Amino acid sequence: MSAPQRFIIILAGGSGTRFWPFSRQSRPKQFQSIIGDGSMFCQTVRRVLPLEPEGIIVITNTLQVEDARSQLESMDIPVASEPDGLEPGGALLVAEPQGRNTAPAIALAAALVLRRSPEAVMMVLPSDHFIPEEEKFRQTLLAAEEVACMDRLVTIGIAPHRPETGYGYIRKSARRVRQAYEVEEFREKPDSDTARSYVESGEYFWNAGMFIWKADIIWKELRTHMPALAACMDPLRDTSRKISLREDLVAAYAEAEAESIDYGVMEKSDCVTVVPGDFTWSDVGSWASLWELEEKDADGNAGGKNLVVVDSRNNLVRTDKVAALVGVSDVVVVETPDALLICHREKAQLVKEVLEALRKRGQKHLL
Amino acid sequence: MSAPQRFIIILAGGSGTRFWPFSRQSRPKQFQSIIGDGSMFCQTVRRVLPLEPEGIIVITNTLQVEDARSQLESMDIPVASEPDGLEPGGALLVAEPQGRNTAPAIALAAALVLRRSPEAVMMVLPSDHFIPEEEKFRQTLLAAEEVACMDRLVTIGIAPHRPETGYGYIRKSARRVRQAYEVEEFREKPDSDTARSYVESGEYFWNAGMFIWKADIIWKELRTHMPALAACMDPLRDTSRKISLREDLVAAYAEAEAESIDYGVMEKSDCVTVVPGDFTWSDVGSWASLWELEEKDADGNAGGKNLVVVDSRNNLVRTDKVAALVGVSDVVVVETPDALLICHREKAQLVKEVLEALRKRGQKHLL
Repeated sequence: MSAPQRFIIILAGGSGTRFWPFSRQSRPKQFQSIIGDGSMFCQTVRRVLPLEPEGIIVITNTLQVEDARSQLESMDIPVASEPDGLEPGGALLVAEPQGRNTAPAIALAAALVLRRSPEAVMMVLPSDHFIPEEEKFRQTLLAAEEVACMDRLVTIGIAPHRPETGYGYIRKSARRVRQAYEVEEFREKPDSDTARSYVESGEYFWNAGMFIWKADIIWKELRTHMPALAACMDPLRDTSRKISLREDLVAAYAEAEAESIDYGVMEKSDCVTVVPGDFTWSDVGSWASLWELEEKDADGNAGGKNLVVVDSRNNLVRTDKVAALVGVSDVVVVETPDALLICHREKAQLVKEVLEALRKRGQKHLL
Repeated sequence: MSAPQRFIIILAGGSGTRFWPFSRQSRPKQFQSIIGDGSMFCQTVRRVLPLEPEGIIVITNTLQVEDARSQLESMDIPVASEPDGLEPGGALLVAEPQGRNTAPAIALAAALVLRRSPEAVMMVLPSDHFIPEEEKFRQTLLAAEEVACMDRLVTIGIAPHRPETGYGYIRKSARRVRQAYEVEEFREKPDSDTARSYVESGEYFWNAGMFIWKADIIWKELRTHMPALAACMDPLRDTSRKISLREDLVAAYAEAEAESIDYGVMEKSDCVTVVPGDFTWSDVGSWASLWELEEKDADGNAGGKNLVVVDSRNNLVRTDKVAALVGVSDVVVVETPDALLICHREKAQLVKEVLEALRKRGQKHLL
């Protein structure tokens, strides 16, 4: 079987607030260097370049489109702003007029791929995940592509090694399709007892939000399960008209309802499979999960060589200054030129309340 | 009884490290604005100006002498560098060649006062204490002066309101001298059980390191109990020779041994009395004691209007930035342009270990 044309779809429109004050609305996590070499977005792009994609489609928003452009250009990737300008091996940069969750972004990408190459495979990837074992990751994508070419919707499931309550889970069935399993069901974020039972059963994977499928197959499924959305994006497929993304997207998004692809399609379709991914993976969802990933000293402190530690354990410190910890444990310290966060490691999810307080005070420049 | 000539002696040579990173070797606590309006040193000077002293003698060191000078000048106080240049109501600025604890500084000051005015009273005050009830404080000094004029050594004892283990204690006898008590004994910093028994007995005061006496009386006591020190400083009394502080002090300090006035004189003399001081007082000895003194919100957080608090209690934050606390309690956070300290409030005494670590790393500019 010869390899199909591949398009990589990178979802880079998130406005994550969980890395405040390091990330901001206008400088979200994916365009920052949180962990690893370069921004999360650059790492995501570099990770798939060896797959020699026909094109990369980056879906972002109007606030972040210039960051995305300059980061793509810094990697010497030619950037197009209209689908018909996309060069082989180049990137098409698409700014959604509004964020509408994943289903509209993916439907839009599917329409743009269909416009160019109806038989192509789409690999849909988040732009802000940490995946250090790149070769293992690419092998998993290729295994998923094989299954996708059998007209299945494929998702990648991460083997869970702890009862994480912050992720959705995918339950596999016993029915195999090459390296994949047909999916029994998707489950929302569980409580900790449920999460423990999932992990012990060996039947569940973490839902990593990565999807591999042929453009015509997801389009068919969208027409079945989300017909209104497919109708919104349908004009973009039509090669007989020259499109202008800015105008066509405004029209399409005026009608498109916000929905996740998981809820809109994956949980309803009967051709969904999951390929196990056994590479190291994290969605780096909070300062707490960053602490898990960072290099730490013998006392569990992550903070680099400018950190002085006295009687302190399991802390994460981000600052350019010399920082000293004295008698404190399980604390996250983040300093930027205009803000300072001190957060208990297990309370990192409450950082959003800080943003709420700043909003109420009218300090929007800090959001 | 007419008021005697008064000289205020301000001991400002300390190189406190306990407010790192806010204070540094070259910018110690007394010349910083830690609490209250202006530096601790300026507050100390302003507090005694209504007593209309004949002169103020500031004893500091070579690193800090320019800070002292500029702060005195900012209060429009004429500054002299030689004793014979001291104007009425002005200040004489003396830089010790080396720090030698309090006894040499006080002996030096006594010699300089004797040189000008043998009958004068000296009020010896630390430069870094917080005393917001200024009028009560001055009334206590005047009561102490009355006793000093009866040829006693007078110290001010603070009525203890908690079993503090960080202070020395003074035990009074039943024998009164006007508003003072003759001192039964001085006690070193106690353990907490002992401190509790001291407080319950009602017989003990905190030793605040403030001394009031006639220059000729302390000189007599120095000659009795510290004859070598008195001999070192004796040339400074001699009005028949013109002195040059810089040269004379180098000679005197080459011989003077380091000793506290408490151990060298107060614990040995038989004419020591204590005047109770019932004003609010703190030596502001650490970030922990600063937290005690600061204005706090309902959850015990001190940090001003730029502080955002989520689920956090009893913290102290010092920064010019917007700072957010999330799920942390009993923490001290201090940010300066080149350093950041995160310290448990009850571990503030370990800040000195940070300085030790920086010294070992060769980061002397941060000390």
